[in-house]
Amino acid sequence: MNMRILAALAALTLPIPLLAQHDPAALQQMALADDTAYGIVEDLTTEIGPRLAGTDREAAAREWAVERLKAMGFSNVRVEPFDMKTWVRGIETAEVTAPYTGAMHISALGNSASTGPRGLEAEIVYFATMADLDAAPDGSLKGKIAFVSHKMTRTQTGASYGQFGDVRRRGPNIAASKGAAAIVIRSVGTDYHRNPHTGGTNFAEGVSPIPAAALSIPDAENLERMIRRAARDNRPVKMKLVLTPRQIGTTQSGNVIAEVPGSDPAAGMILIGGHLDSWDLGTGAIDDGAGVAISAAAAKLVMDAGIPKRTIRVVWWGAEEVGIFGGKAYAEKHGAAGHALAMESDFGAGRIWQVDFRLPDSAAAMQTKIVEALASMGIGRGRGVASGGPDHGPIVALGVNAIDLQQDGTDYFDLHHTPDDTLDKIDPQMLRQNVAAWATVLGIVANDPADLLPKAKVAE
Amino acid sequence: MNMRILAALAALTLPIPLLAQHDPAALQQMALADDTAYGIVEDLTTEIGPRLAGTDREAAAREWAVERLKAMGFSNVRVEPFDMKTWVRGIETAEVTAPYTGAMHISALGNSASTGPRGLEAEIVYFATMADLDAAPDGSLKGKIAFVSHKMTRTQTGASYGQFGDVRRRGPNIAASKGAAAIVIRSVGTDYHRNPHTGGTNFAEGVSPIPAAALSIPDAENLERMIRRAARDNRPVKMKLVLTPRQIGTTQSGNVIAEVPGSDPAAGMILIGGHLDSWDLGTGAIDDGAGVAISAAAAKLVMDAGIPKRTIRVVWWGAEEVGIFGGKAYAEKHGAAGHALAMESDFGAGRIWQVDFRLPDSAAAMQTKIVEALASMGIGRGRGVASGGPDHGPIVALGVNAIDLQQDGTDYFDLHHTPDDTLDKIDPQMLRQNVAAWATVLGIVANDPADLLPKAKVAE
Ligand SMILES: [Zn+2]
Ligand SMILES: [Zn+2]
Ligand SMILES: [Zn+2]
Ligand SMILES: [Zn+2]
Repeated sequence: MNMRILAALAALTLPIPLLAQHDPAALQQMALADDTAYGIVEDLTTEIGPRLAGTDREAAAREWAVERLKAMGFSNVRVEPFDMKTWVRGIETAEVTAPYTGAMHISALGNSASTGPRGLEAEIVYFATMADLDAAPDGSLKGKIAFVSHKMTRTQTGASYGQFGDVRRRGPNIAASKGAAAIVIRSVGTDYHRNPHTGGTNFAEGVSPIPAAALSIPDAENLERMIRRAARDNRPVKMKLVLTPRQIGTTQSGNVIAEVPGSDPAAGMILIGGHLDSWDLGTGAIDDGAGVAISAAAAKLVMDAGIPKRTIRVVWWGAEEVGIFGGKAYAEKHGAAGHALAMESDFGAGRIWQVDFRLPDSAAAMQTKIVEALASMGIGRGRGVASGGPDHGPIVALGVNAIDLQQDGTDYFDLHHTPDDTLDKIDPQMLRQNVAAWATVLGIVANDPADLLPKAKVAE
Repeated sequence: MNMRILAALAALTLPIPLLAQHDPAALQQMALADDTAYGIVEDLTTEIGPRLAGTDREAAAREWAVERLKAMGFSNVRVEPFDMKTWVRGIETAEVTAPYTGAMHISALGNSASTGPRGLEAEIVYFATMADLDAAPDGSLKGKIAFVSHKMTRTQTGASYGQFGDVRRRGPNIAASKGAAAIVIRSVGTDYHRNPHTGGTNFAEGVSPIPAAALSIPDAENLERMIRRAARDNRPVKMKLVLTPRQIGTTQSGNVIAEVPGSDPAAGMILIGGHLDSWDLGTGAIDDGAGVAISAAAAKLVMDAGIPKRTIRVVWWGAEEVGIFGGKAYAEKHGAAGHALAMESDFGAGRIWQVDFRLPDSAAAMQTKIVEALASMGIGRGRGVASGGPDHGPIVALGVNAIDLQQDGTDYFDLHHTPDDTLDKIDPQMLRQNVAAWATVLGIVANDPADLLPKAKVAE
């Protein structure tokens, strides 16, 4: 029995300190000199571009992804397909017709109904906030176009999106249930460009979908000014909308999976990734080309440094934007068993500045190790509980541990779901910083002796 | 003969010091507390919006302008109409069809020909600079779409526009003369948004116009990446263009004129203004709603302070964007006679930081007075020769004096001729600073004893 076999046996059976080749400082140094991630997002946005869930373009992205992940040296590269109901965009124009005139920049929200090609012209009823729309009497919007505005302030954490995103997520259903003919919202965003922010919405069972769309923020503010002026002498403001999106029925999406096999399958795997689908207006660079790139580039750095104890499973998720269909399909198929930890990158390519955890007390030593390793990069300990990211929500709900490397989102909602989500918005140096933080954490969690396997879920 | 008549006679005949009510410090203080200019640009962009030269919307703007200038208390408010050949935008789409796919954001340039509604699909031939296009052999572009890129760096003075704007002004004519089927250019701009920068182009006599359009800068850079990749294995890059603009023949435009009558008509008038027409993609806030607002608000401040010696003539010019047709019509009709000085605001709403002059030596004392009064606002003396602004070019060429209050243009070409030229881009505080600088200069030049009347033009 020679020394190499002995060492291999030791690795399989004993709690061992962090392998030298997965030392945080070494991985960070490599990451900061590595443009693998930028190459992935550059190629994806240039060769594939927009890749709306359920469409041919998302399928093209999966094909591209399988080839790329194989070329990077990952094992067990495969697609796990699933079916979904698919919505596609059509023509979209908006024009104020009275008492002023003006073409406005607009985009339909996912699941919007169509106005038909001849469009719909109606009076605007203005609501300053979502609460005002909620308070409108039933039937009061009959035949009208509801216009819901809001103020949204930029935040580093992105927390304002949860609250103000409600206008998009819930507004159309409420307006439809009160009889509105259509709804336009002020884009859920923080920029001042003529770029509408799209995104998904949903109508409850029994509520007939209506045309629903977002105005760019300069257009929404111009419409507000028109409404204030027209109100002075009680003139109605009218808008003509042409929106022709449609539901195309059931099509296929899928999750693309690749692995770095670990030396100790019994220790559970580390599930990481980002989502491969994107909205169709931009090229999906920050949402979420960056995320698939960061997670895979970090996994490759760890893989190239040496065999980790735990398997690292990289998933490039399908159909996140339209309902986390990929994450749900995965959780249904695989359950929580064998998953030690989940981490996702889906908040752009800004600097990682904070880390949050969802770990058992028994992993306290590992957590401290991570906090210390990230502190050397200026990344602080957050006070939140990690979510694991949107695609991992379903499996985290089943009891899987999670770590969130929080990106600076100050500018994220300038670009989110707009035509402006393009490669030029990514700073290669920031992307390397992300990969360095990810590789640091991966190097630790993939080798730590803590028991990370999910326990039977207890009611909370 | 009472004292009032004596004083009036003195004012008419003697060199007098700057009237107390037109004291720079007093005017500056009033300007910095006055939102007249913001009100003008807010109302114009909200109630009228885009106002392409020669169209109904420009006519609506003139009607609005006459009413507004009368309401402000100006005298002799009138329109001087002129005829022009008018071009209007149609559908505009661009899509890469091989070897990758992708819809691109594009806008036709003024005077672009149409592809017809079925469009045009052809191979792209790439030129990194205008000089490269100039060097292409005659006939080498036969049936191809020329794509001309460039690098343009932001400058405070806007000087880079002169040089790089050539790609737009001259590129289409050169491409057409070399047999190209169409030309697309990288937008002449400094931003990274999916907003194409439109603008005028011209084809020489005997050169048949071709479809000519600008790609947004993120799209142009994506196309460059596609071209580099495709070149690796010699694959052609193809684009499908649909552009349906058209020439609608002769229509009417006009200059809107308003005056502050001076006490000494023989001293010549001060000609000031901005242009009322705008490109059709934005609402013409910074180009040039700001300019019409700044010039008129400053004239009103001087008017309200007391009767100036010289008449101030405010002109809101028509059809500047498409060939300075208003400025040319005015110079033809009025000539230089009786014009003491010309000043225009047509470079956005950024802080005024510098002043340039084109004055006779005999006005040296007045110039010093202006430099000193502006120095108190932190505005320095430039080394350039004032142009008087684009609309005043024709009359300055006839020998009229000029002063340029230079605005900070660092961000101007982020917005110039794009859909993003909207009210929200104007900082009300900066606009007030502009009005303060303008009122300062107007207060001096409208009252100074210097002989400013144009001399018979001497060949230079
Ligand atoms: Zn996302
Ligand atoms: Zn998203
Ligand atoms: Zn202009
Ligand atoms: Zn212009």
